Amino acid sequence: MTYRTPVAEISFALRHVAGLDAAIASGAHGDLTMEDADAILQEAGRVADAVIAPLNPVGDRQGARLADGAVTTSPGWREAYRTWIEGGWNGLSAEADHGGQGLPLLLNAACSEMWNAGSISFALCPLLTAGGIEALAKHGSDDLKERYLGKLISGEWTATMNLTEPQAGSDLSLLRSRAEPAGDGTYRIVGSKIYITYGEHDLTDNIVHLVLARLKDAPAGTRGISLFLVPKFLPDTSRNDLRCSGLEHKLGIHGSPTCSMAFGDNGGATGWLIGEENRGLACMFTMMNSARLNVGLQGVGVAERSYQQALAYARDRRQGKAAGSSDPVSPIVDHADVQRMLLTMKAYTAAARGICYLTAQALDAARGAEGKAGLDRASLLTPVAKAFSTDIANEVTSLGVQVHGGMGFVEETGAAQHMRDARILAIYEGTNGIQAIDLVARKLPLNGGATVRAQLASMRRVAEAVQKDATPAFGHLGPRLRAGIESLDRATSYLLKALASNRPEEAQAGATPYLRLFGLAQGATCLALAALASNAALKTGETDPAHGARIALARFFAENLLTAAGGLEQSVVDGGGFTQDGMLALAG
Amino acid sequence: MTYRTPVAEISFALRHVAGLDAAIASGAHGDLTMEDADAILQEAGRVADAVIAPLNPVGDRQGARLADGAVTTSPGWREAYRTWIEGGWNGLSAEADHGGQGLPLLLNAACSEMWNAGSISFALCPLLTAGGIEALAKHGSDDLKERYLGKLISGEWTATMNLTEPQAGSDLSLLRSRAEPAGDGTYRIVGSKIYITYGEHDLTDNIVHLVLARLKDAPAGTRGISLFLVPKFLPDTSRNDLRCSGLEHKLGIHGSPTCSMAFGDNGGATGWLIGEENRGLACMFTMMNSARLNVGLQGVGVAERSYQQALAYARDRRQGKAAGSSDPVSPIVDHADVQRMLLTMKAYTAAARGICYLTAQALDAARGAEGKAGLDRASLLTPVAKAFSTDIANEVTSLGVQVHGGMGFVEETGAAQHMRDARILAIYEGTNGIQAIDLVARKLPLNGGATVRAQLASMRRVAEAVQKDATPAFGHLGPRLRAGIESLDRATSYLLKALASNRPEEAQAGATPYLRLFGLAQGATCLALAALASNAALKTGETDPAHGARIALARFFAENLLTAAGGLEQSVVDGGGFTQDGMLALAG
Repeated sequence: MTYRTPVAEISFALRHVAGLDAAIASGAHGDLTMEDADAILQEAGRVADAVIAPLNPVGDRQGARLADGAVTTSPGWREAYRTWIEGGWNGLSAEADHGGQGLPLLLNAACSEMWNAGSISFALCPLLTAGGIEALAKHGSDDLKERYLGKLISGEWTATMNLTEPQAGSDLSLLRSRAEPAGDGTYRIVGSKIYITYGEHDLTDNIVHLVLARLKDAPAGTRGISLFLVPKFLPDTSRNDLRCSGLEHKLGIHGSPTCSMAFGDNGGATGWLIGEENRGLACMFTMMNSARLNVGLQGVGVAERSYQQALAYARDRRQGKAAGSSDPVSPIVDHADVQRMLLTMKAYTAAARGICYLTAQALDAARGAEGKAGLDRASLLTPVAKAFSTDIANEVTSLGVQVHGGMGFVEETGAAQHMRDARILAIYEGTNGIQAIDLVARKLPLNGGATVRAQLASMRRVAEAVQKDATPAFGHLGPRLRAGIESLDRATSYLLKALASNRPEEAQAGATPYLRLFGLAQGATCLALAALASNAALKTGETDPAHGARIALARFFAENLLTAAGGLEQSVVDGGGFTQDGMLALAG
Repeated sequence: MTYRTPVAEISFALRHVAGLDAAIASGAHGDLTMEDADAILQEAGRVADAVIAPLNPVGDRQGARLADGAVTTSPGWREAYRTWIEGGWNGLSAEADHGGQGLPLLLNAACSEMWNAGSISFALCPLLTAGGIEALAKHGSDDLKERYLGKLISGEWTATMNLTEPQAGSDLSLLRSRAEPAGDGTYRIVGSKIYITYGEHDLTDNIVHLVLARLKDAPAGTRGISLFLVPKFLPDTSRNDLRCSGLEHKLGIHGSPTCSMAFGDNGGATGWLIGEENRGLACMFTMMNSARLNVGLQGVGVAERSYQQALAYARDRRQGKAAGSSDPVSPIVDHADVQRMLLTMKAYTAAARGICYLTAQALDAARGAEGKAGLDRASLLTPVAKAFSTDIANEVTSLGVQVHGGMGFVEETGAAQHMRDARILAIYEGTNGIQAIDLVARKLPLNGGATVRAQLASMRRVAEAVQKDATPAFGHLGPRLRAGIESLDRATSYLLKALASNRPEEAQAGATPYLRLFGLAQGATCLALAALASNAALKTGETDPAHGARIALARFFAENLLTAAGGLEQSVVDGGGFTQDGMLALAG
């Protein structure tokens, strides 16, 4: 069950899939060198392996506990958190004003993957803090920033997001929590929230809650929601009027306390407005790209960990004689069907990693020279990064159980934990169905379709390079990649037309298979980029076996997983008939 | 969370997919009438809903417990088991000689689905007993049959299968348990077994263990394994030398005790040989078709239950405005993407049900006029029934969680239990990878390929009927079904050729996508049969809305799920390159 961060693989993807070295060379990241970046990755990998990864089974067996309103995290978590923030990891890509290191988001994304491979439950806490930092940095008053930003960036305090209420999950327009001006510039907040990750814990002295609530006489729906900062302890060190009223008993991520929160039992919790009144949802949206990307990276992390564990087991466990083997009992990794499972795990994980890194790269570009075009690209890729990575995390972790056979179903093995933990990822931070609708209904129309067309063009350039290269080891990679991109292109045109013709239900009906198709084509493109770079390295005489592995992996993905593209296109283009008669089929 | 057995749907599938009424009309089932069969289904449904279904959450929360070598089942289980066997359900399709009711296996399959929808954990106990009955009836001496068969058929005693040992899972050639003749016709059995379902429990006074062990000087490998009957209590009522040494802590099916068993701590447990010495594996193989079919039915049952729960939730939960709705907040079932999830659940479940029933029908046919051809057909369909049904059970129960959103991740909702419970099905009774290899390497070559060709021809006849019918409501059902069957045909030819050309690793590499392709084409054929029957009924003026639902469901399956067929064919036919370089890709 030892886990080791694949630092070399991550570094390779940063360079050759997401172009980090080119960005550095162009001066986009100041005086950062690729050597600096690699040193950071090495050290992050060491911390993930040595400090965080061992927490994961502990958190599962002895989850966070609530007693007398206080939540105790699992054994060892306080110490690990302390070590982790002392390493400066929390503020890696935060801007320098309040103590951040101002490093590329892309580098932070790679580190985020590592923390999550170590333990999703542990890494969730800083993931929420990062969202708080972003909202505050963009929309907070100077006074609020002065008071909270430094401590959040250092990790001395953590942040939470209080959105969901029992009647308001995917649909925030239904939320009921109330806020009233107190007359002194603060507000009194009253309401109940559920599913609040790390809403209460013992890792830090204070917790900064970001809470969505309605002002009296605010417009109905989402345009009447405001965002408030509501700290557990007030500036005068007194306790605010809020408490954790319960912990959920969950399928997974037991180490992460999922709290019900009660605000204002005694008249109202004191809060400060972030941004403008009734513009709270807009404040939330500004941090949505990076929060969703981070959930995608959780998927990549847990998938990588599940893969490593399954591979180690398959190399160790001996059953049956593999075809062509001279040994009467082979390690199960020698059996073709087990290889298929392991390659599927590895290939999906690498593809999702590539998509997430491309998204982070676009966010960096948006901060820099590219500006809005970068932001639009990030907006397009974000739902794919979130949903594809977490869908494959469910599949990969389930395969991880399957490779273990009966042992996989026994909890002590640990394979099942990854599957249970991963299951939340497709649900929170916008369900994957919502991601798909976001992709189709909001992102495809960006700039009249020009953003998605540009992305398709960038994929085609890679497919052309593969076909030009024509290395025999690529197998059918070239034609399959080309076919997958063409399927995506046609499905895109179909959906844009459906939207333009005011047939939104048709576009929504095809959204989920479309997002999968996008993920497969974009993911295959990422693997092809890595394969091309490895092939070039082999031609210059490099002998690292990882090069051959990347070529073989890209080929496997194209020949065995991207093959789904044509069928997905068909489902998008003429599978939507059920919106007319679907209710009929469910009625029977 | 109320569950209701879909009796009418099951009855319709028995008639129109598996031809039960035709078989009855032909006299194949003696004086049984379809009215009798429907009365039995009604009553079984009532028992499943009222007696078994309520046990399921109880078994999950308070699983079976071991203390001082004794296993206590969950609260209410003893009473429910008593009620169930008193209803005569255990011996429904057992032959009449020892108290069975001699009813069609097809009818028993339908009931088995119901028990498993009620509770997999509960239904597992009789599932194992059924295997014991079959082995004993076919291979036991008259004396053993006289002593045990009646009590197993009535359910007064239960049976277990003791195959697995820590080093011997999928590969039984490695097993080490020993047996020695005692000189009095009995044997002394010594060894440790793991993963023994209901190896110890308090539902009955005695437990009849069927144990695989090696005689001294037996040939190595699978040809040196013998099967023994080893009762917990000996005929003289003394306790046999065997005990439950531990219970597994599992991901799911907590109500079903999974035991480690120690045989012969004090010199040797007393056992009786079943069949001939060294022919134990052959004895096991004779019951493999029905045991594997029963696991497939477990998949159908849990998928049906998960679907019903998700549908009820989706009708109740209101979030967001559905496209085209005038209501500002719609039940989520009105959203196209949620409909897609629910239809996928329902369509996969119905397809798997059809495949399982067809397999049971073939087993009935093998008992009757068709003989070997029926048995060969059952042998061909069995790995598909087992693996496809349990693969889709994993997918359907995961979708069941997804439909619930955040609520799905909270254990109290119950949706997650179905997912956890279902996860074992693809593993036990031969992993689904082993089913796929069995299908490709052993079943396709049956009768030189004639068995699979006949099955393809039977699918084509249905596709032709659909195309001839040309009802507009069928949408693309006809062409998609045709295309799916042709993909299956080409993939079949490819694999038969690979086998004939002594390229077993290529056949094994393609086995899993091939089985999926087979399941999709066969499943779509089953749904098309139901749709054709419903369409015919509509033409005669029937107004049951279930008819329209079946047509819409077949169409959805063809347009949205069977669309994967072409890609699967591609993966089978030219995705096997990884057997040459797969190890390379994993090495990196």
